[in-house]
Amino acid sequence: MLPKDVQQQLIAQGRDFMKGYRENDPYMEDFQSDQTLRLPQPPLCKAPMRGEAARTALPMHFGELPMGDFLSLIQKRKSRRIYTDEPITLLQLSFLLWASQGIKGRRGKAYATLRTVPSGGARHEYETYIAVRKVEGLAPGIYHYLPELNAVELLRAAEDPAPEIVESLSGQKWAGKASAVFYWAMDAYRAEWRYGIYAHRVALIDAGHIGQNLTLAAEAMGLGSCAVAAIEHEVCCRMLEIDGEKEFAVYAMPAGTVDPEKDAAAEQDIYRFVREQNL
Amino acid sequence: MLPKDVQQQLIAQGRDFMKGYRENDPYMEDFQSDQTLRLPQPPLCKAPMRGEAARTALPMHFGELPMGDFLSLIQKRKSRRIYTDEPITLLQLSFLLWASQGIKGRRGKAYATLRTVPSGGARHEYETYIAVRKVEGLAPGIYHYLPELNAVELLRAAEDPAPEIVESLSGQKWAGKASAVFYWAMDAYRAEWRYGIYAHRVALIDAGHIGQNLTLAAEAMGLGSCAVAAIEHEVCCRMLEIDGEKEFAVYAMPAGTVDPEKDAAAEQDIYRFVREQNL
Repeated sequence: MLPKDVQQQLIAQGRDFMKGYRENDPYMEDFQSDQTLRLPQPPLCKAPMRGEAARTALPMHFGELPMGDFLSLIQKRKSRRIYTDEPITLLQLSFLLWASQGIKGRRGKAYATLRTVPSGGARHEYETYIAVRKVEGLAPGIYHYLPELNAVELLRAAEDPAPEIVESLSGQKWAGKASAVFYWAMDAYRAEWRYGIYAHRVALIDAGHIGQNLTLAAEAMGLGSCAVAAIEHEVCCRMLEIDGEKEFAVYAMPAGTVDPEKDAAAEQDIYRFVREQNL
Repeated sequence: MLPKDVQQQLIAQGRDFMKGYRENDPYMEDFQSDQTLRLPQPPLCKAPMRGEAARTALPMHFGELPMGDFLSLIQKRKSRRIYTDEPITLLQLSFLLWASQGIKGRRGKAYATLRTVPSGGARHEYETYIAVRKVEGLAPGIYHYLPELNAVELLRAAEDPAPEIVESLSGQKWAGKASAVFYWAMDAYRAEWRYGIYAHRVALIDAGHIGQNLTLAAEAMGLGSCAVAAIEHEVCCRMLEIDGEKEFAVYAMPAGTVDPEKDAAAEQDIYRFVREQNL
């Protein structure tokens, strides 16, 4: 077992990280961001990773999607881990991507994007990748979202991405049945350019904004989703073709078509241990 | 200036924290959580901090609040930092609290709450505090949300909480004009009981879920809000009567009544530097 004092030290470090750097922070006075030093700002989005031939345009006529009011959405939303084999439509996939990371406007020539979620200092430091299993109009495989072009690009076809999905999410088998799995990878310098040593705490909060919008967007369309923070770093690096240092996966969300009856039964299974252990 | 090597080391630490502990994690094998060790689970909510006389029941008839559909909500949501002097209603405050941290159900006798946002392992490790400036039916002051009772309790009346609001949010003056400011403080052991040394990365993501639901709920009701991660730790400890170690503030969100015209003008001011500097 981990020695108690090591464990306490790690917990204290974790808590300190959450508090951010504080009034008595030894670095605060001496820290200057690259923005302050007038170093050039990095691009607002990652450049396409493939040529135009790999791209699929995303439909944007979201008005056709039936969506209820916000109150009933909040009332019914829950984590849903059981998906049917029905595919989602390309329009549904497009709405999930747009609602979580879509670009609504710009500030200045290349200063900031305005997106469908807030981001500390409008840095919007995440790239979105999608493991597609069952989406109408898209071959199964690994895709990269291009929010400036309202498109996705195919990085690699994969007849059945389920095994690598499960491996990338620490063996959670239910995730391998999702219609699509969304991965958010931080392009670190996009936030560090402005916030430097203070960028990372804020970026984790930003990941929560993105995930929350995606789970609400799924629920609004009658789909299900469930967030996963237990990510296998190296597996994601291979899967998403990212280097793991300048860009690394932080958060993921499987989403898919659901059957409310099966969902309820499966939920009983998941919580059986709570009943059995009399918790 | 901070020496380059110290800065790089701090940035590397921040990135590592975001990745979580990894496949080659020296602690993973030896770590056992208090849950695994069968230590008693801590309470799901903080006990009331004052007697019954300090409580105000929150109205829950949210069906009376006009709320649009989810698509138009996502289209129009943005950070809003300019508030009018009109108060918000108690029902609006109640909806903001419920939509961000309300309890919809329970698992087991005392195993987990099911809330309006997802939380890693259903830990729901945050307490909500509110600095009330202009809310119908509530005296200005500092309040604590009691989600199990659908109530708030007055910790301390304050004729004008604006100065301490501004101080608590690193001098951001616009926040002192909000109708109410929401503060989320982590009750650390509630998550650490289950996740131990791995609790803190997930808890920051959870803070993002909460903030995102609050900003959407505000927009749905025609109110405005803007997230603030730049929190003054010690000021929040004094203000919210928390110890800063077992419980500490992580994230905050001013919210209030807005005037779209003033809002647009103020936004031009905020982004003037982008135009002036030709960014």
